[in-house]
Amino acid sequence: MQIAVLGGTGDLGRALVLRWAYHTDHDVLVGSRDAERAQEAVTEYEQTVSEVGGDPNIVGLDNGKAAEDAEIVVCSVPAYYLVEAIETVSAGLDAGDVLVSPAVGMTRDDDGVHYNPPDAGSVLALAADVTPERVAVVGAFHNLAAGRLADLSRNLDVHTPVVGNDSAAVSTLVGLAEEIEGLRAYSAGPLANAPEVEALTPLLVNLAMYNDELQDTAVTFE
Amino acid sequence: MQIAVLGGTGDLGRALVLRWAYHTDHDVLVGSRDAERAQEAVTEYEQTVSEVGGDPNIVGLDNGKAAEDAEIVVCSVPAYYLVEAIETVSAGLDAGDVLVSPAVGMTRDDDGVHYNPPDAGSVLALAADVTPERVAVVGAFHNLAAGRLADLSRNLDVHTPVVGNDSAAVSTLVGLAEEIEGLRAYSAGPLANAPEVEALTPLLVNLAMYNDELQDTAVTFE
Repeated sequence: MQIAVLGGTGDLGRALVLRWAYHTDHDVLVGSRDAERAQEAVTEYEQTVSEVGGDPNIVGLDNGKAAEDAEIVVCSVPAYYLVEAIETVSAGLDAGDVLVSPAVGMTRDDDGVHYNPPDAGSVLALAADVTPERVAVVGAFHNLAAGRLADLSRNLDVHTPVVGNDSAAVSTLVGLAEEIEGLRAYSAGPLANAPEVEALTPLLVNLAMYNDELQDTAVTFE
Repeated sequence: MQIAVLGGTGDLGRALVLRWAYHTDHDVLVGSRDAERAQEAVTEYEQTVSEVGGDPNIVGLDNGKAAEDAEIVVCSVPAYYLVEAIETVSAGLDAGDVLVSPAVGMTRDDDGVHYNPPDAGSVLALAADVTPERVAVVGAFHNLAAGRLADLSRNLDVHTPVVGNDSAAVSTLVGLAEEIEGLRAYSAGPLANAPEVEALTPLLVNLAMYNDELQDTAVTFE
């Protein structure tokens, strides 16, 4: 399978690329607004994965080309850039492709961070509003700490909830997530359930703020 | 310490009473709108705790008397009854007492359940609005599955976030929670951070709805 990670040079994007390149045989397409920057990142990613004995399949492209070539398109960009990113690549998305968003809208004040969804109800609902109907939209990976995920020597032991507007696409993402060793994924249902999934991230940020031992927190549901 | 559990004949109330009576030496005051009903429940609770080798200190009272006698008053009532319950007992609350709410506002539709906070911003903020200023208000235990908690033979291995309008009161509740074996509690900060804590419960309900293996889910943060 071809998995594109747009914003694949950012922290969470890098972590997802490293994990899929290390644990799976899928082609991982690193997307960036600047193809040259993507290719530079790939050089580092290949080295990082090879150092721990992996055999990575990674290429660097601009976001548009990466989205065009892949069936799974993870938009690992900040919430405020998500709509623009989707609109930039949407012409290249085919029927049956899956667009994946890990984005969360949050505000910060002295007390902590607070879930701040757009008028659409959730960031994922906003993404669905601007994504062509032929493409399924799935939310996943919101709660994963990039630092923990990117450390390939570390046992992850973390769970992630997955929601989306197409149950088959949710299942596909649950499967792709679980190909990463130590990561378990669970469906949290349809798009309407995205707010509660997205709101988990600010809770984790707040727990980290008030508890020294809860940095890079891994959540599990048992 | 005297811990009152108002609504102590309900599912979560019963579970908290059983656990505190089993694992601690605190006096546990079971409150109900009907004192006789509370006393009947105590008979069952004493038997349940004794059967697993505990030495329970439990008494049954009406809600008002239970709140009057206790320093920690857990309002284990549904969200829609919380304001009325607090108003009923507030005259009996002393300066330095702590009022604890595990209540969450949720709506349900075919997709799942959805966090539905009151205009105050969270159920806890609403509780704080109607509680005398001399009394601290703390949110805790929202995410605990009553069935798992009430089964004294079961190793809990579950974590709960705690928020409130007084950091000393939050610490007191973290301590009281952790006197229950297998339960760990973490501060999630001040009252403003309550929505994200309350929103964890509908996420768990949705995960249970879409995953057979996630009934009575225990969350951990590591």
